[in-house]
Amino acid sequence: MLAPGAAIGILGGGQLGRMLSMAAARLGFRCHVFDPGEAPPAGQVAEHVTKADFRDRAALERFAEMVDLVTYEFENVPLEALDALEPLRPVRPGRRALEVSQDRLTEKGFLRGIGLSVAPYAGIDGPDDVEDALERIGAPAILKTRREGYDGKGQTRVETAAEAKAALARSGNVPAILEGVVPFQLEVSVIAARGANGEVACYDPGENRHRNGILRSTTVPARLPPAQRADAALHAGRILNALDYVGVMGVELFVTERELLVNEIAPRVHNSGHWTQNGCFVDQFEQHVRAIAGWPLGDAERHSDVEMRNLIGDDVRKAATIAADGRSALHLYGKSETRPGRKMGHVNRLL
Amino acid sequence: MLAPGAAIGILGGGQLGRMLSMAAARLGFRCHVFDPGEAPPAGQVAEHVTKADFRDRAALERFAEMVDLVTYEFENVPLEALDALEPLRPVRPGRRALEVSQDRLTEKGFLRGIGLSVAPYAGIDGPDDVEDALERIGAPAILKTRREGYDGKGQTRVETAAEAKAALARSGNVPAILEGVVPFQLEVSVIAARGANGEVACYDPGENRHRNGILRSTTVPARLPPAQRADAALHAGRILNALDYVGVMGVELFVTERELLVNEIAPRVHNSGHWTQNGCFVDQFEQHVRAIAGWPLGDAERHSDVEMRNLIGDDVRKAATIAADGRSALHLYGKSETRPGRKMGHVNRLL
Repeated sequence: MLAPGAAIGILGGGQLGRMLSMAAARLGFRCHVFDPGEAPPAGQVAEHVTKADFRDRAALERFAEMVDLVTYEFENVPLEALDALEPLRPVRPGRRALEVSQDRLTEKGFLRGIGLSVAPYAGIDGPDDVEDALERIGAPAILKTRREGYDGKGQTRVETAAEAKAALARSGNVPAILEGVVPFQLEVSVIAARGANGEVACYDPGENRHRNGILRSTTVPARLPPAQRADAALHAGRILNALDYVGVMGVELFVTERELLVNEIAPRVHNSGHWTQNGCFVDQFEQHVRAIAGWPLGDAERHSDVEMRNLIGDDVRKAATIAADGRSALHLYGKSETRPGRKMGHVNRLL
Repeated sequence: MLAPGAAIGILGGGQLGRMLSMAAARLGFRCHVFDPGEAPPAGQVAEHVTKADFRDRAALERFAEMVDLVTYEFENVPLEALDALEPLRPVRPGRRALEVSQDRLTEKGFLRGIGLSVAPYAGIDGPDDVEDALERIGAPAILKTRREGYDGKGQTRVETAAEAKAALARSGNVPAILEGVVPFQLEVSVIAARGANGEVACYDPGENRHRNGILRSTTVPARLPPAQRADAALHAGRILNALDYVGVMGVELFVTERELLVNEIAPRVHNSGHWTQNGCFVDQFEQHVRAIAGWPLGDAERHSDVEMRNLIGDDVRKAATIAADGRSALHLYGKSETRPGRKMGHVNRLL
């Protein structure tokens, strides 16, 4: 069990690292953010910041020596970074969760392997695989790069083999998967935590709405019948246990008439879990810190119904209006530059 | 109205500055802490730290130039610091609140001047004043230094003139006041905020318990009849308006059978207001930031009954046990050294 006063290293200094850092400080931990960027949002609330590339082995080793434990705020941490860090300090959640979630094909195989349903998919190693895959999956389908996609990036909806090949060529023919379009009724996500001793705690599923591939809002409770609500938590628990996971994970699910399909997993705190900051006694950020520090997990019970809305790009100009609403809690990320599509903050409104 | 991204300077880097800094970050502000100490708790969660004396004019001027607005987390900021800062940046709450609260005699006169009741008191400029004062106030009484006292420091209970003179001599015969011992039933405090536009918001009074002069716990609701609860808020509002105050203030009140006596005021966020972090939608720290930034005040409504307990000295060892209780929220201050009597953190337990 990590004692208060210990230092937690966070790989990645975006808004997730920022909110992790503040939650860790609340529990008496000091934080050290590692990020290649110029002025990472998390750096404003962390004791130390290392500005270096995730492949800079010497910088990673110096960083490891200054902290007691390492975690990460995004899943595209190069595995080489873990090669440097793991011999020196515990890294939680570990390598396995990164390996699985960094590659969509590996992820689907893992999920199916533990008995969960996923959308129909086929791996695409090059243009020659396209016809076969499209025949098996059916059109329309979504071509996704296997790696590095987020917020809808690296995804193209295709109707024909020619379209799929063109999209593949635009990506530089990197490895991809073709995924069937699922006629889902809603998308929900479960934020789940697993402690160092194996205990699991799940927050209530939230219902997500996207626009242009970017999460716009999450509402709790989701419009799910009780049985599916329980299933969603059980699915998340099965994933965490199979990975021997320690920390918080976001699990996105498609809800169809018949079943729950796992869309994707994110081995970290998750945008669709921000509502917990104002809906629960212990939020996802503190929960993650408790888990990786070997502390008892907090109560994940929801005390309020909440709608979380992302403030994207110019939305942030509404901050003053939002602040005037007594039922809305504002969370801004301290980003100096507003850009279209950039997540600048979010607001949790009590329902 | 201060826009997100602006920098707030905080004089003092203790736990109050630390929690102010995190609240400011949540609203998108950057923080710069000014403190003479080696590793101030607030420095762990602030973007910048200046380590310098509060009388170092050059350091204060450099600090002012790096921020957009200055506030303080303790009332013993030397007024010379304001001489350096005020020409350069707005300082909120302003000089008047500091002048009044830094000197117990001035404070009592101010409170009585605006029609509020205080304990009987007499100023003591030297040993010659003791007999007269004790005769007027009656024994037992409490001799308090006029300046620099906190957590019961600089206070002595006296029965006789000889005792009072001895206590005065031990303090180096600094200016003092003699205060009557009030037979109060309970001590409550009101955390009140006043916005830049004059709007006032008060949190529900909390009931305080002290041990050895140090606050041990605050419980809300306080055991107060509704009329006194309303009076407490009205008293606080009168104080804020009279000072043309902007920010959060802690007002301590003695509750006697017949009336409310104002014990003292603290022109800053206050230990007895920590319960708001888990009892209200907008806590005292965010409320203070909203006020000084010229934002609309947040809703001060209490959604939960809470008991706040300070973790003093070795109490902090109970952190793990507390964390395991699903109704308790832990707030630790990141202080590296545990000392007897030192405030190391607090816990808010839902009742």
